[in-house]
Amino acid sequence: MTPGADLLRSAVLSEGRVEGSLLMVDGFLNHRVDPPLLRGVGEDLADRFRSEQPDLVLTAEASGIPPAIFSAAHLGVPLIYAKKYLGPGDRHVFSREVVSPTRGAEYRVEISRRVLGAGHRVLVVDDFLAGGRTAEALGEIAEEAACTVVGLGFAIEKQFTGGRDRLEAHGWRVESLVAVASLEGGQVSLAG
Amino acid sequence: MTPGADLLRSAVLSEGRVEGSLLMVDGFLNHRVDPPLLRGVGEDLADRFRSEQPDLVLTAEASGIPPAIFSAAHLGVPLIYAKKYLGPGDRHVFSREVVSPTRGAEYRVEISRRVLGAGHRVLVVDDFLAGGRTAEALGEIAEEAACTVVGLGFAIEKQFTGGRDRLEAHGWRVESLVAVASLEGGQVSLAG
Repeated sequence: MTPGADLLRSAVLSEGRVEGSLLMVDGFLNHRVDPPLLRGVGEDLADRFRSEQPDLVLTAEASGIPPAIFSAAHLGVPLIYAKKYLGPGDRHVFSREVVSPTRGAEYRVEISRRVLGAGHRVLVVDDFLAGGRTAEALGEIAEEAACTVVGLGFAIEKQFTGGRDRLEAHGWRVESLVAVASLEGGQVSLAG
Repeated sequence: MTPGADLLRSAVLSEGRVEGSLLMVDGFLNHRVDPPLLRGVGEDLADRFRSEQPDLVLTAEASGIPPAIFSAAHLGVPLIYAKKYLGPGDRHVFSREVVSPTRGAEYRVEISRRVLGAGHRVLVVDDFLAGGRTAEALGEIAEEAACTVVGLGFAIEKQFTGGRDRLEAHGWRVESLVAVASLEGGQVSLAG
């Protein structure tokens, strides 16, 4: 167990709330943010992939930015955050349509072709792995841009929503700091 | 001139592009992000307000998060990022409608009542001050939540769009690291 993972595990157990099928962590991770916790999370995720020599971190706005910017700072590489749009797209972007069960809506993940060059070794970082659709879109965009996906790192993984299978089917390595085995009965059960 | 402001000034002059009335800084500030630059920006803004003893940093997703999280980390205080929505709201949030000339659309800035308590000394941090409507919404939400706005800090200020006047009319202190005097003729002219 690493420091960021430790801090996160404690926070999930003490402050996480279950609302239906959702784990609410808006008190410390994705609305109100505790910077030392996020720094620990971002650095831990970076360290898990450091041997792969990533030279670019990729995430999606908005909740991916806090962990991902600390991963990028720790690795000494740039961060690109993809934008999410509901409206019409344009031809100067790499984009993917994403259906989000959490949001109950379809949206588009976009990265400007101007900022994403070819040949990078890309680490995808995000706060949550649930269905894995947003992360899959980011990985596919990276590959479309002729980059290599060295891995995908998540703060929290929900193990019962199929996201890991979806990503590993691409041959990508997946890591998470805290894995949630179940939210049944309104209780957070962590794996391991 | 402080280190973050220096770095930002150089980046704006060497990499900023003018598109109509917009200053595009998506290569280093708000799409592709250079972490050392953003760290410098966030820390400089924090230092300008440190004597006011802010105990909470407030920003709006998504482009405000990179500078604001480094401000919060530097001050040792939490960050709250407001969410932007197009759809219907609910009663568990503080919210304001914002008309964005940049986006050409109206959206809603929201902060959950659960994460924003009363009595905080709030520093608002954002990447851009243009019309000032988003920052005004954040300041008004903070005051509605019975917090004190100790100031508003921006990476880049467009001096010709009325934002500073709008915010100072509330009696709030406004700081920016780089002030753009004009974008006429497709040229970036900085103040000072």
